[in-house]
Amino acid sequence: MLTLASDFGSPYPAAMKGVVLRESDARLVDVTHDLPRQDVRGAAFWLREVLPEFPPAVHLVVVDPGVGTDRAALLVRAGDHALVGPDNGVLLPPARELCARQDRDPDALDAFTLDPGDPASHTFHGRDVFAPWAARVHEAGVGNAAALDGVDPAGSYQDLQFPAPTVDGERAAGEVLVVDGFGNAVTNVPGTVLDGRYGGEVAVNGEPAPVRRAYARVAAGERLVTVGSHGNVELAVDQGRGDEAFGLSIGDSVRVER
Amino acid sequence: MLTLASDFGSPYPAAMKGVVLRESDARLVDVTHDLPRQDVRGAAFWLREVLPEFPPAVHLVVVDPGVGTDRAALLVRAGDHALVGPDNGVLLPPARELCARQDRDPDALDAFTLDPGDPASHTFHGRDVFAPWAARVHEAGVGNAAALDGVDPAGSYQDLQFPAPTVDGERAAGEVLVVDGFGNAVTNVPGTVLDGRYGGEVAVNGEPAPVRRAYARVAAGERLVTVGSHGNVELAVDQGRGDEAFGLSIGDSVRVER
Amino acid sequence: MLTLASDFGSPYPAAMKGVVLRESDARLVDVTHDLPRQDVRGAAFWLREVLPEFPPAVHLVVVDPGVGTDRAALLVRAGDHALVGPDNGVLLPPARELCARQDRDPDALDAFTLDPGDPASHTFHGRDVFAPWAARVHEAGVGNAAALDGVDPAGSYQDLQFPAPTVDGERAAGEVLVVDGFGNAVTNVPGTVLDGRYGGEVAVNGEPAPVRRAYARVAAGERLVTVGSHGNVELAVDQGRGDEAFGLSIGDSVRVER
Repeated sequence: MLTLASDFGSPYPAAMKGVVLRESDARLVDVTHDLPRQDVRGAAFWLREVLPEFPPAVHLVVVDPGVGTDRAALLVRAGDHALVGPDNGVLLPPARELCARQDRDPDALDAFTLDPGDPASHTFHGRDVFAPWAARVHEAGVGNAAALDGVDPAGSYQDLQFPAPTVDGERAAGEVLVVDGFGNAVTNVPGTVLDGRYGGEVAVNGEPAPVRRAYARVAAGERLVTVGSHGNVELAVDQGRGDEAFGLSIGDSVRVER
Repeated sequence: MLTLASDFGSPYPAAMKGVVLRESDARLVDVTHDLPRQDVRGAAFWLREVLPEFPPAVHLVVVDPGVGTDRAALLVRAGDHALVGPDNGVLLPPARELCARQDRDPDALDAFTLDPGDPASHTFHGRDVFAPWAARVHEAGVGNAAALDGVDPAGSYQDLQFPAPTVDGERAAGEVLVVDGFGNAVTNVPGTVLDGRYGGEVAVNGEPAPVRRAYARVAAGERLVTVGSHGNVELAVDQGRGDEAFGLSIGDSVRVER
Repeated sequence: MLTLASDFGSPYPAAMKGVVLRESDARLVDVTHDLPRQDVRGAAFWLREVLPEFPPAVHLVVVDPGVGTDRAALLVRAGDHALVGPDNGVLLPPARELCARQDRDPDALDAFTLDPGDPASHTFHGRDVFAPWAARVHEAGVGNAAALDGVDPAGSYQDLQFPAPTVDGERAAGEVLVVDGFGNAVTNVPGTVLDGRYGGEVAVNGEPAPVRRAYARVAAGERLVTVGSHGNVELAVDQGRGDEAFGLSIGDSVRVER
């Protein structure tokens, strides 16, 4: 199985699919091609949420604002999974979570650089570098990929950590990491700060808002604070956009007071 | 075969795919993840149009504004097809049409509740409840699903009927059910009211408009009235947006006078 | 293998998938359903870029502003590949490129008309004409498709050529063919006019702009001129929209002076 994820929208993902299908007999699964555009951190957040649901697979991940520069091509092995993509940090959060779900040490990742060869373009390494490598890793098998010509242990690589929230008694502070398509503003504040407050209220950046377990527990159009499927505090509006109602964008600070 | 349909956009559908692939060897087919957001009736309309084209399959359908409330999880059997999703009516119109296409009584549906267990989240039952159940139904086979633990005959369930149009001699009245991506305003008025008028005109909400069998039968940018692929009256503009040209949104009344 | 490409967005592609799966056991691959809407030339450009990456396949292509008129249904054979879609030119540029990649004469295409039968609608031939034919061609095999009932050599067909740029010493002139989702304005000017200028500048419509091999070779938000993955001159902004920064839309003239 080979999954594909990118911020390409349309139609560039098709070129990657064609390359992979030409060079392997992998079963293809589209993860998404609408990752937050050029947003390495946001993309890593979503991939950390969704890739660990998959059975063992090679995951081709291309969110690559540095395409054509000298950033490396990377292979990261996470147990029975492999991730192939640019060395800009995007692979690391999902790789660590994939390890954790397999009861492996999330910090004992195997990372390798991939020889990019002489790619046909400087602007589309998804097609010219990463897709061919993902196909090769798939054909070799994740366990054998390290022995392939052009694969070398990575002396170092770009890591990416999400900002840590501050949790202090009755107060927590963090920021908006991503906004999903429904308009829910997803923060890095752990959902546990809402424990014991369901049915009541907290203050978000000083303004009171109801705490509910489900969107439809407030009237349509009303604001609420909940814990999203990722376990973090999420600022939402039932059948509306939480980002707008709370006036929050990616990177904005969020204080939650119980 | 297991099809997936939702209003999730990106990237949540990938989590459902991962769960299904982890728990079954189903062949996956994306129906769409851009169903009208939080619009149960509009989603049901489109699913009634497209699901009956498929060969026998398990159809995972998640348009679920009531996620996390006490609305049930439902399995509906429609001949050789099964639909799995929330008990909010969205499954019923496609299920009835699937029966009709198999020469079965559309009102003799088998509906079952599905034990939701103790889902990991209150906000993403697509991942935590419906995808696991769809995989289970697929693995058991549609014909055997009723015997699975946690599947019980539904005493009652939420139905959904589209509003009935009024057809009275030379006049028909209805409303806009959905607007498609091209901007065509699709009504519940049966296309038969246009019979004998092709090449001529009808009045739509009092304004005359040409009746044509194909969009390109008027000049680019001109309005027309036609019958869409669903058999209903559709208000369109050749290479433009009918909803804007006719000033119509979902739910708006439409009178057609011959 | 059967690929699907259209400008349908959602949810109409699902109807085509259902029809194909009902009538064949083809492996389906979504190319994209977000081709430039009703833009036959733009769609042909992108399909010329991506379809040649695929292994042998039947390619179902539906960008069809003339649906329901008397334009024919076409099958074009390009070596081991077949393309099925409307006779409006959209199939020809990818078909020629598919031939070229297989070391075949791009102008020795086999084109056939397909009997549309009596389609259920005048507005959705993707479902009613092209998908059934693509399934039939797949089942017969590309090499045998010409012998199917209803397939006849096309006496003539609609061709489509991209406008030719003018390259004259230190000057080249052309136009914007498409704008991609990142906002890159892709022209028909060959990228070779930038040779020897990387790291320096050219004038675009009289205004100087840096020439770089990769987007990130300028500061975020800055304009650049580069050669895209298609080999043509592309007007871009690092992490921004080139079309807006250069004030260019599809069809606009572009002069590049070295």
